Amino acid sequence: MQELLEKIIKDCQPYTEEGRLANYIPELAKANKNALGICVMSDEGRTFCVGDYAVGFTMQSVVKPLILLLALLDKGVEQVCSLVGVEATGKPFDAFNYSDQALTGAHINPMVNTGAIALCTLINGATYEEKFERLLSLAKRMTGNPNLSLDTSVYLSEKATGHKNRALAYMLKAYGMIHEEVEDVVDLYFRACSIKVDCKDLANIARILADQGVDRKTGERIIEAEYTRYINAIMTTSGMYDGSGEFAFNVGIPAKSGVGGGIMAVVPRRMGIGIYAPALDKKGNSVAGRKALELLSKQLGLSIF
Amino acid sequence: MQELLEKIIKDCQPYTEEGRLANYIPELAKANKNALGICVMSDEGRTFCVGDYAVGFTMQSVVKPLILLLALLDKGVEQVCSLVGVEATGKPFDAFNYSDQALTGAHINPMVNTGAIALCTLINGATYEEKFERLLSLAKRMTGNPNLSLDTSVYLSEKATGHKNRALAYMLKAYGMIHEEVEDVVDLYFRACSIKVDCKDLANIARILADQGVDRKTGERIIEAEYTRYINAIMTTSGMYDGSGEFAFNVGIPAKSGVGGGIMAVVPRRMGIGIYAPALDKKGNSVAGRKALELLSKQLGLSIF
Amino acid sequence: MQELLEKIIKDCQPYTEEGRLANYIPELAKANKNALGICVMSDEGRTFCVGDYAVGFTMQSVVKPLILLLALLDKGVEQVCSLVGVEATGKPFDAFNYSDQALTGAHINPMVNTGAIALCTLINGATYEEKFERLLSLAKRMTGNPNLSLDTSVYLSEKATGHKNRALAYMLKAYGMIHEEVEDVVDLYFRACSIKVDCKDLANIARILADQGVDRKTGERIIEAEYTRYINAIMTTSGMYDGSGEFAFNVGIPAKSGVGGGIMAVVPRRMGIGIYAPALDKKGNSVAGRKALELLSKQLGLSIF
Amino acid sequence: MQELLEKIIKDCQPYTEEGRLANYIPELAKANKNALGICVMSDEGRTFCVGDYAVGFTMQSVVKPLILLLALLDKGVEQVCSLVGVEATGKPFDAFNYSDQALTGAHINPMVNTGAIALCTLINGATYEEKFERLLSLAKRMTGNPNLSLDTSVYLSEKATGHKNRALAYMLKAYGMIHEEVEDVVDLYFRACSIKVDCKDLANIARILADQGVDRKTGERIIEAEYTRYINAIMTTSGMYDGSGEFAFNVGIPAKSGVGGGIMAVVPRRMGIGIYAPALDKKGNSVAGRKALELLSKQLGLSIF
Repeated sequence: MQELLEKIIKDCQPYTEEGRLANYIPELAKANKNALGICVMSDEGRTFCVGDYAVGFTMQSVVKPLILLLALLDKGVEQVCSLVGVEATGKPFDAFNYSDQALTGAHINPMVNTGAIALCTLINGATYEEKFERLLSLAKRMTGNPNLSLDTSVYLSEKATGHKNRALAYMLKAYGMIHEEVEDVVDLYFRACSIKVDCKDLANIARILADQGVDRKTGERIIEAEYTRYINAIMTTSGMYDGSGEFAFNVGIPAKSGVGGGIMAVVPRRMGIGIYAPALDKKGNSVAGRKALELLSKQLGLSIF
Repeated sequence: MQELLEKIIKDCQPYTEEGRLANYIPELAKANKNALGICVMSDEGRTFCVGDYAVGFTMQSVVKPLILLLALLDKGVEQVCSLVGVEATGKPFDAFNYSDQALTGAHINPMVNTGAIALCTLINGATYEEKFERLLSLAKRMTGNPNLSLDTSVYLSEKATGHKNRALAYMLKAYGMIHEEVEDVVDLYFRACSIKVDCKDLANIARILADQGVDRKTGERIIEAEYTRYINAIMTTSGMYDGSGEFAFNVGIPAKSGVGGGIMAVVPRRMGIGIYAPALDKKGNSVAGRKALELLSKQLGLSIF
Repeated sequence: MQELLEKIIKDCQPYTEEGRLANYIPELAKANKNALGICVMSDEGRTFCVGDYAVGFTMQSVVKPLILLLALLDKGVEQVCSLVGVEATGKPFDAFNYSDQALTGAHINPMVNTGAIALCTLINGATYEEKFERLLSLAKRMTGNPNLSLDTSVYLSEKATGHKNRALAYMLKAYGMIHEEVEDVVDLYFRACSIKVDCKDLANIARILADQGVDRKTGERIIEAEYTRYINAIMTTSGMYDGSGEFAFNVGIPAKSGVGGGIMAVVPRRMGIGIYAPALDKKGNSVAGRKALELLSKQLGLSIF
Repeated sequence: MQELLEKIIKDCQPYTEEGRLANYIPELAKANKNALGICVMSDEGRTFCVGDYAVGFTMQSVVKPLILLLALLDKGVEQVCSLVGVEATGKPFDAFNYSDQALTGAHINPMVNTGAIALCTLINGATYEEKFERLLSLAKRMTGNPNLSLDTSVYLSEKATGHKNRALAYMLKAYGMIHEEVEDVVDLYFRACSIKVDCKDLANIARILADQGVDRKTGERIIEAEYTRYINAIMTTSGMYDGSGEFAFNVGIPAKSGVGGGIMAVVPRRMGIGIYAPALDKKGNSVAGRKALELLSKQLGLSIF
């Protein structure tokens, strides 16, 4: 496995040149465009790491499955599904051209910004500070990393420039889908997106999602199996933005990407994978990361189809 | 298994009352709304049938995976993917409100009418008669049913009323995506939709897609494994129209429905399922069929996630 | 004329029952649904008033032509037209389902909320307080009413509930079309909408727009003729929201309506008309007001076509 | 006047270089790109012609007001308005991205292709041959030109390539808005578009529309005044495609353009204008023609606003 990963890193390195760093959050544009790291945690409990696997980066949209998960844990599937739907929207992740008819929960997906922002309001907590602490705490348990923390400069950069997310939140409020102060809600969302992780952290979350919620190392059940199926399903249909269909077609693994350059990929019952390569394609997915997963899937027959 | 299926039929029977028969093709409105049949073919080669499994019905959109498959076999994945994309469109199956920007192959999915009609032109054959014979022949091989034939009255009914499909085809022609005579192309499409099958036929196709292209009874490879992964992936992301996300979430099995009331469901490496229940929900999926698959998936742990 | 107006009031009274009071700004729902008033100022300098012409109401969208006018006076036609376009959008006045391609100035009309909000940033003034004072001052000159003031309770009601306008403003900011603090910009817009007028005030503005910018009573030129043509043209193509086409067809007079129930109508070279009737049709236009203008136009041959 | 027109021709000649000939109808691409002709018929019955005023060209969309007029004459305003609406669509003339909600008559405008095609079915006539003869006959009366005829090569070129119009017509049929054979309906539309005229012909139609339906030379009433107001109103709001708002803003005259390069402009109560200059802007309007009308309007104060 280690050898295979080394070869994949080498083969995929040229693809880091093809994409572009996210520039709409100024701080993200400072990343090393050529970075590429992979971490694989297999079901036998072994961990393989190559390349820039130890470089830290912010979760960005990779946190969306955790927001959905915590909303499910806190409020149950019924309440979550009455607020947001699970259909692919056929639109980019930050689209706001929803027609009035589409602005019902049924058309708002937890894997696009509007849906994730709406779900932030379902997280339990007396204050937004507490809501964030609970989300961070879930992230710590899922990554197995008790030192997880906020990247303050990215957080402040997002807070200063995230007007499109404010527009989406006000739209939700105008339609009665959220009721809180918009600035509180988007602040939680900006903080969630700015949690700093590395490839091992993502691989560990993915490993638990692959093992139906159980941490095989300890035997502890962290979340119920039912919820991992929900998360893996929605990552398959919508996790790679409007490139999800092609990713299912070519790679065939539930995965979630973020504009920070991370991809978290779940091979049900077999392994968890964390990837970092910050140069993105036009849809916001890591170019080299996507390629690495394609090679890995083909070499090891990981497709769920 | 037989007992389980009997119980599921009983539990799902009431759901046949909830939907409505497709009425935009007049002939389809003549079906028995309360019909419900299931056929399961397991990987050990056993077949289980319950309810109205022997009733014949037309494939309608269930033929779309076969059109895609034949186009892939005839022209290869590159040419197919240069004509159509594989992203969920976020729209109903017969939508034509494509903006000019969206009218590139990348936004046209083989599981919605526009994409399937476009793919009809990629099927080999000197004449449209021959193209249809080749498609029917593939269907015969996949169903294992040499007697498969056209339901002429449904075909004529579709031909007489299918103006929306003609509109879609002229739109494709206006944008240079197809070049043939529109009436020839839609005639092939109408005939393909009117192939008459029963639950066993669908289960047999699904079984071969589940077994990566090999007919386990004979050991014969019918199609390459790679193509079955493509088909299963796109059925997962787009097979149940704009209800695909919810179906992945709740059921977790690659499947394709048709407005004739059929659903073909593929459990990779485990089984093929054919269902018939013609009362449809608003998105065009069989209500009782969807419910039966949900129960079956939960009882037997069939979710791929 | 007085008699004719009395008859029209009588004939149109029943139409006040057909519409509904605007309810999305809570304060507006408190109006008297059956109110109906008309004021006509003819080119010979005579004024005719009937019905509830003296009832005060807030301008709401009727202020949009004044915002456009002040932006034109302050920055000139070139700068205004580089920020906003003048095409009908084919959408309701508060639509936000702009596609990315449409979010260029060319698709944002000064008579819909997005365009009017954008134009607020072009009004001269060191502070937003000063910008508002300058707008109010223009309104005073155009109405000839030095006592014009804000309806504070409507203003506060809009400020408390106007989240859709905040969403639109953040969208403009996200696309780099405005750069100011969103809350400042929408506050100016809410105040502008809350200027309290009566039928005579509107008729007086309309009279000056009809007389190509000259106040015939005093002979004073208040604005340049060129600008009145711009305002009258855009009111004709977009002044009655997505009912502008039908209004041109049936009535044929440049006019602007507001959800407060007012309509300001300009008969070039002939007269200015102010109407108040707060029950609205589905598009946000005063039902009885629209009907009264239709009758008036037909009786007096006022159509510009 | 003659001198003024000569000067305008000279000033506008350079603009013929800026546009492009329509190329989607192959035959239209053969026109002389630099041609520019103007004909003005004033209310005192005088005619002024300059430049390429005698060059023949096909009406294309300039025929749409005549189709609307004949439908109004044949079926009355109520039946026409129950099939099509009069709002600007905010879309290009050949758009088909109507959402299902928008596919009601209220959103289909007689000045865009969909609406004009729908109106073709309202023209009286036992056969489509007869319908066309009646339309041609109206055109002869309005132009005062008994020799008006079809440009057969343009007609055949449109018939061979007009697949987008076929798509629109099948869409109308799928939604039950038309019931005839699509090929018959679009054939009538293609023929209507291919009627060959020159600047004098257009000016004569415009003159009658300007004089409220009366031919001042003969004193004969050709159509009722009410209908000329309808036509002039809808040309103002939608006659220059999605450039109508800007045209009203800058020129202020009811007008209809066609991709053949013609513009027919109506100055109510004052004059009729016909222009020919086949190089088009991106919206399908004659570049030099638009400029010439702007200069003429400003020089002579023709704006209706």
